[in-house]
Amino acid sequence: MSLSEHDIVIFLSSVAVMLFFSRVIGEFLKKFKQPIVLGEILAGIILGPTIIGALFPEVMQVFLTNNSAVNIAFQGITLLAVVMLLLVSGLEVDLSLVARQGKAASLISFMGFVFPFGVGFGAAWFFPDELGISANQNNLIFALFVGTALSITALPVVARTLMDLNIFKTEIGFVIIASAMLNDLVGWIIFSLILAMINGGTNGLEFSSSIFMLSAFIVFILFIGRKIFNYILPKFERVTTYPGGILNLILVLGFAGAAFSEWLGVHAIFGAFIVGIAIGDSVHLKEETREIIQQFVTNIFAPLFFVSIGLRVNFIQHFDLGIVLLFLILAFVGKVIGCGLGAYWGGMSKEDSLTVGFGMNSRGAMEIVLGTLAFQAGLIQEKVFVALVIMALVTSLTSAPAMAYFLKRSKKKMNFKDLLRNDLIIFSDAQNKQQLITELSGLIDVKHKINKEKIEQAVWKREQQLSTGLANGLAIPHARLKIQAPLVAVGICKNEIDFNSLDGSPAKVVVMLLTPETEHELQLKLLADISKCFQTKSFLQELSLLSSPNDVISKINLLS
Amino acid sequence: MSLSEHDIVIFLSSVAVMLFFSRVIGEFLKKFKQPIVLGEILAGIILGPTIIGALFPEVMQVFLTNNSAVNIAFQGITLLAVVMLLLVSGLEVDLSLVARQGKAASLISFMGFVFPFGVGFGAAWFFPDELGISANQNNLIFALFVGTALSITALPVVARTLMDLNIFKTEIGFVIIASAMLNDLVGWIIFSLILAMINGGTNGLEFSSSIFMLSAFIVFILFIGRKIFNYILPKFERVTTYPGGILNLILVLGFAGAAFSEWLGVHAIFGAFIVGIAIGDSVHLKEETREIIQQFVTNIFAPLFFVSIGLRVNFIQHFDLGIVLLFLILAFVGKVIGCGLGAYWGGMSKEDSLTVGFGMNSRGAMEIVLGTLAFQAGLIQEKVFVALVIMALVTSLTSAPAMAYFLKRSKKKMNFKDLLRNDLIIFSDAQNKQQLITELSGLIDVKHKINKEKIEQAVWKREQQLSTGLANGLAIPHARLKIQAPLVAVGICKNEIDFNSLDGSPAKVVVMLLTPETEHELQLKLLADISKCFQTKSFLQELSLLSSPNDVISKINLLS
Repeated sequence: MSLSEHDIVIFLSSVAVMLFFSRVIGEFLKKFKQPIVLGEILAGIILGPTIIGALFPEVMQVFLTNNSAVNIAFQGITLLAVVMLLLVSGLEVDLSLVARQGKAASLISFMGFVFPFGVGFGAAWFFPDELGISANQNNLIFALFVGTALSITALPVVARTLMDLNIFKTEIGFVIIASAMLNDLVGWIIFSLILAMINGGTNGLEFSSSIFMLSAFIVFILFIGRKIFNYILPKFERVTTYPGGILNLILVLGFAGAAFSEWLGVHAIFGAFIVGIAIGDSVHLKEETREIIQQFVTNIFAPLFFVSIGLRVNFIQHFDLGIVLLFLILAFVGKVIGCGLGAYWGGMSKEDSLTVGFGMNSRGAMEIVLGTLAFQAGLIQEKVFVALVIMALVTSLTSAPAMAYFLKRSKKKMNFKDLLRNDLIIFSDAQNKQQLITELSGLIDVKHKINKEKIEQAVWKREQQLSTGLANGLAIPHARLKIQAPLVAVGICKNEIDFNSLDGSPAKVVVMLLTPETEHELQLKLLADISKCFQTKSFLQELSLLSSPNDVISKINLLS
Repeated sequence: MSLSEHDIVIFLSSVAVMLFFSRVIGEFLKKFKQPIVLGEILAGIILGPTIIGALFPEVMQVFLTNNSAVNIAFQGITLLAVVMLLLVSGLEVDLSLVARQGKAASLISFMGFVFPFGVGFGAAWFFPDELGISANQNNLIFALFVGTALSITALPVVARTLMDLNIFKTEIGFVIIASAMLNDLVGWIIFSLILAMINGGTNGLEFSSSIFMLSAFIVFILFIGRKIFNYILPKFERVTTYPGGILNLILVLGFAGAAFSEWLGVHAIFGAFIVGIAIGDSVHLKEETREIIQQFVTNIFAPLFFVSIGLRVNFIQHFDLGIVLLFLILAFVGKVIGCGLGAYWGGMSKEDSLTVGFGMNSRGAMEIVLGTLAFQAGLIQEKVFVALVIMALVTSLTSAPAMAYFLKRSKKKMNFKDLLRNDLIIFSDAQNKQQLITELSGLIDVKHKINKEKIEQAVWKREQQLSTGLANGLAIPHARLKIQAPLVAVGICKNEIDFNSLDGSPAKVVVMLLTPETEHELQLKLLADISKCFQTKSFLQELSLLSSPNDVISKINLLS
């Protein structure tokens, strides 16, 4: 059997049409700060049986649905597309970032997984019919699936939302990304176990040996494979053509991992994802290489996959309002509360915890991949698939506006105490104003990668207009810079430093405040807040007697 | 029908194995200065029925050959691959370069097309059986095909060979590339006509209307489409995400063009190639965009296509020594003599003409694409296909060594007269040495894009060691630079310029000589050659009376 000339015309023009519409709608939605992937899915729903198929059934006949050879060819492409998409998603996971964000990220991703999983599992266990279980489906497997489906977070969508909101490189952004990474990793492992449970034995493997080999695979790739890859990468680049050799190697490893995990009875994309994480972690992987793969896959192949989602079912015919609402409620409750609690217990304010909760709530691309697999595996029926896709769209669409709202509230309430960090407090030997400013700027440079010279320059410019030395031995040198969140560095001085203060008294405590260029009000508010904190001379004296940054923070927090 | 889990395992692991082996063999051959594409084809021959299939028939059973769903999926991938490959090849075609190289390129590509076409057509017309015509094949169509097959040149392979030989940006390199581009364009148009002749009517189109629409398509895309694209590109980039939007647009246009030409009864790749030319010609297309498409396609998809060549037939079983030798002889004779004559008539030396002939002789990727299509269309049988593939490999393999040999001989014979160009001769008003050197450096910068400051610096360094003013009013300021071929700029001075010559006489004629860093001997030879040219004082006087660069060249060429 082979593709006829007619098939080739249909195949190529379908690909052109899908790419075109997905882009047009995606770019349109992007104007409203929505991720492009939503447009790609909508394009599929429009081009598929839901709209075009219902209006012009004869067009659908000619195109994908009714031609089996073209259909298979298209399945081949979408398979490669989704494998490469997960490989790229894996490349974006940065294990060291997860490790650095440590406690907060672990709490958030633990709660953000366990809580929605519990909510979903419980709901599906006790009310399987309301959630649309198929007649012949095992209740346990269905409940496990619903739990997993509610606990997944779409890392790529989250990353894009954070960039759009301009908080990608802030502390809260790092925490969200790290949590989403960990969440994704755990979620996919659980889902792969469920798939292995269903498929167990299809490739002649027992479920237990499938699980054993899966665990061995994950451990081997993430611990040993990662190091081997990092070791051979620079050597490999020396002996092969750049970037061709390394591009090829990445894809070979990705496809091999995919084939292996598929053979285990877990879906192919899981292997590609794990291999992607191991490769992406290498410090030797050049940005250019990553860029070529990422751009080509996300712009050419991923759209074909996402469009194909909409082609599978009629979203109007299989729309069941009850199931859709239930899934939506469970999704919001599970994720926002779960992650929010994790963040709150990790020490964040209420507003920031809700920001994290809504940030993690995006199901986007990943939910849809998972739903598609479950649908193909016969695990869920059309109306649940439709509900999952809608839930993924709605959670992703609401993520950015909800985060923006809570971020704004959080900023309004932001005060000096929230900004104190123990690694930005020093006990300084500086002899004069200039030395101290240089010291504090250097510290911020080291900890937050903000150019030292730029800080010094901006702060000195302000000092030359009017000195920032206040009464009682406090000085607040400050400046507005191109940064995304305010920063505070505190110097407790051993020597008395002349800051040309109004009352002539030398400074003992110097608080350097840097705020984002655009936020004029925030700066004024924080300046007022800081001077209020240190209004009594005795308090400043007490501070200078302390010996550790943590003591300083405790002392300040004790103030009403 | 859909891909089973078992199919997916086979499919993904086949892709991984093909990519891996094609790369390993390709990189190995690259160490011997051979294009990577040869390795990719060899990998296919090894993995296909010729070697692995013959040794381990049971392995072949499991993999591609015997599984119809996997086969169709793989056909879909190779179809996209070859369409994208031709799109990328089109992007590399630079119509303005062809226009600039004007006469020489037209002569070479005309002769390089007509002569091998005549040789091939004649041979196939008079000796069809010796060339392996199928029993039921139309003699005219077969002769047309053999003619076209012999006249095609593989632009991507030629480009890579020129880069390897370090002559990509020399005059001879430009001429070869421009000729190859024109040759490719004409060759594919003729081949598409042949395909239309065979397929005419399959899509309900008459041959005549097919030809009419094809011509309209080519004219529209290359003349109007090209301008429209160039006009909308910057606007499009402003309103869409970069580089995603533009990547998507290029692929959409490529696939649409491909679908349209397939519908016309011409193969899909032809449309992609023409669209590629139109897009690649835009001055607004960024290098980064081109790079992403080019790297991903040539390193990931093209290998899958080239490997698939070897999977089609058993190269040992269908090897017919007579046919292979005949095709090889016809190929070498047709192309080397045809292009060589074109170059010679265009004014090149014998050695350079042979360099051009062997440079254009590479059939590489393009011949194989063409052979595959003809084979699929039932135009040729297995043994002719095998002969074509071998001919493509041998002509490509011998291209680089043969060119290197003739380039070396050409350089040995290279003299001052060959290097004179009328746009590098000026009649100067300069008052002193420094002014004149600046003027000549600037001229070279404008004409050959070599940094003016670098030239001046290198030339002055040499002047400070020992002045280059010679007896009789001649000066030869010179330097060795990072350039690929020697350059000469001549200044005929209206004023007498002090060059600190040994005999104290001022300079009237100043010849600036720049040679490649690595070629010490060539520099000495050319310096001797130049001073010999101008050894009589009267000749220099005569030169300074002339008024046009062309007169200067004629006068110098008259010297024995």
